[in-house]
Amino acid sequence: MELQFLGTGSGVPSKDRNLSSVALKLLNERNEVWLFDVGEATQQQILCTSIRPRKINKIFITHLHGDHIFGLPGLLSSRSFQGGTTPLDLYGPVGIKKFVQTTLNLSESHLGYKINYHELRTNGLIFDDATFKVTCGKLDHRITCFGYRIEEKPHPGELLMDRVRAYNVPNGPLLGQLKRGKTINLPDGTQLNGQDFIGPPQLGRIVTILGDTRYTKKSVTLAQNADVLVHESTLAGDQAKLAHQHYHSTSSQAAHVALQAHVQQLLLTHISARYVGPQFYELLKDARKIFPQSYVVKDFDQFVVQFKHQE
Amino acid sequence: MELQFLGTGSGVPSKDRNLSSVALKLLNERNEVWLFDVGEATQQQILCTSIRPRKINKIFITHLHGDHIFGLPGLLSSRSFQGGTTPLDLYGPVGIKKFVQTTLNLSESHLGYKINYHELRTNGLIFDDATFKVTCGKLDHRITCFGYRIEEKPHPGELLMDRVRAYNVPNGPLLGQLKRGKTINLPDGTQLNGQDFIGPPQLGRIVTILGDTRYTKKSVTLAQNADVLVHESTLAGDQAKLAHQHYHSTSSQAAHVALQAHVQQLLLTHISARYVGPQFYELLKDARKIFPQSYVVKDFDQFVVQFKHQE
Repeated sequence: MELQFLGTGSGVPSKDRNLSSVALKLLNERNEVWLFDVGEATQQQILCTSIRPRKINKIFITHLHGDHIFGLPGLLSSRSFQGGTTPLDLYGPVGIKKFVQTTLNLSESHLGYKINYHELRTNGLIFDDATFKVTCGKLDHRITCFGYRIEEKPHPGELLMDRVRAYNVPNGPLLGQLKRGKTINLPDGTQLNGQDFIGPPQLGRIVTILGDTRYTKKSVTLAQNADVLVHESTLAGDQAKLAHQHYHSTSSQAAHVALQAHVQQLLLTHISARYVGPQFYELLKDARKIFPQSYVVKDFDQFVVQFKHQE
Repeated sequence: MELQFLGTGSGVPSKDRNLSSVALKLLNERNEVWLFDVGEATQQQILCTSIRPRKINKIFITHLHGDHIFGLPGLLSSRSFQGGTTPLDLYGPVGIKKFVQTTLNLSESHLGYKINYHELRTNGLIFDDATFKVTCGKLDHRITCFGYRIEEKPHPGELLMDRVRAYNVPNGPLLGQLKRGKTINLPDGTQLNGQDFIGPPQLGRIVTILGDTRYTKKSVTLAQNADVLVHESTLAGDQAKLAHQHYHSTSSQAAHVALQAHVQQLLLTHISARYVGPQFYELLKDARKIFPQSYVVKDFDQFVVQFKHQE
């Protein structure tokens, strides 16, 4: 499980930072890539990564501002052009369906796959299967804007090989049964209960990706105990008034959310073009005063989402 | 008058070639930039040029396929964000207005300037003022697609300084009157007719920019005697059948148009991603067999549009 940032700017693109998009790579877990927001030129950014558009099977849109959605029609078209045939689930605020359908219809773009539209109206569970679940929550922005909490289900415990070896369990079917937690009889008559040979289940990882927002308690709820929190950080700590006026956050406010939610790591994105080059240190400094595990991300940065250490 | 190519690929972007867009820079002539097609990420490409979005005051769309229009909402929004306040004229096939209005409304993008929409239905004159006129003509593509012919009006003749000096015309008001073609009396009583002191008017330049098309006579008409013809060249000369199936042209067909229209220079763009790197030579070779003044353009290439030599 890795996060890769495809665009980390805000509002308008700059040479350094393209418009919002972040990929959650679940290649080992599901052989899938999930995308969060699709600013203009996201498909061009993807050309500089190892991501294959046809592996993107879920797209989550936080809100309908242009810098978060204008790359969607092109990405959807190119996914088809490049041979994508599997269905794609698109989650986002009401209006996202009209946006996609109007742009694709007017441009006579015929996709070789089905889009399942999920227009979100309220907070709650929006996806749940054997290995992952996703919930959404409304943030505090000028227009309807969602944050997403992606939770991996616990992994079954691992086979405790030291204990297995102590009983001289032979390789083969018996070992397989033990691994699945069943009771087996060894050739010498010893009975072993699989449950005694399996470690505790490993907690799944939690990634929270928020859209544009002012500071809100909802962010803390969505990010509770997350391994990684991706939070907007349009402005530095001294610009709280301006941030409030424009329904955005400072890096200090993002750090407060991270602290209150007890997350492991805070990744700051959606950086205003006013912080050119090394000026992003200002944002970083302000955040780290409050939450030391803060990072200001750049386009194409990758982060492996680590498992928490088991107690 | 210069042409700068912002995207020279076809269908899907590649690392080398972005999607269709070409700028006609009329900075000396009008302090304006005109854009022809706006593929996705045109605004990002512009960041790597000296073009200022607020100087773009006319946009001509050839057709509504996504690779020619998906950059339009973002460019229009950023033009406003960056302080553009002057009206913008948008020309294109019927549907372009709905495309722009739907994308801007759904994304709640509020522009600080007015867009004058010109939806084109038939061939003919679409713009005409003191220094330029533009006509459009329907090409042969899968959907309605236009080509544009941009004609500069003739420049008044220059004052023939050698002849002026022979009569010892003093600097000052008399010289100014002579320059405007008026009759003057020199201090010594000599009468001079300004018309005798002005050279022939200089022919204006003609640039023809065509959208996606099969070979059609209409292209020849639009390009007649043009100084520069910009023509699509999706495939090489040996792919005429495939080009026909997909309503596109080969570089050989584009060269035939240039030859028949007696243009000065042929610029080939909209190159299929199958011609990676130096493979574009294949397109070039096929074109030059027919029309030697052919060039396959790359992203960011610039061409000064020269005046024809006067006869």
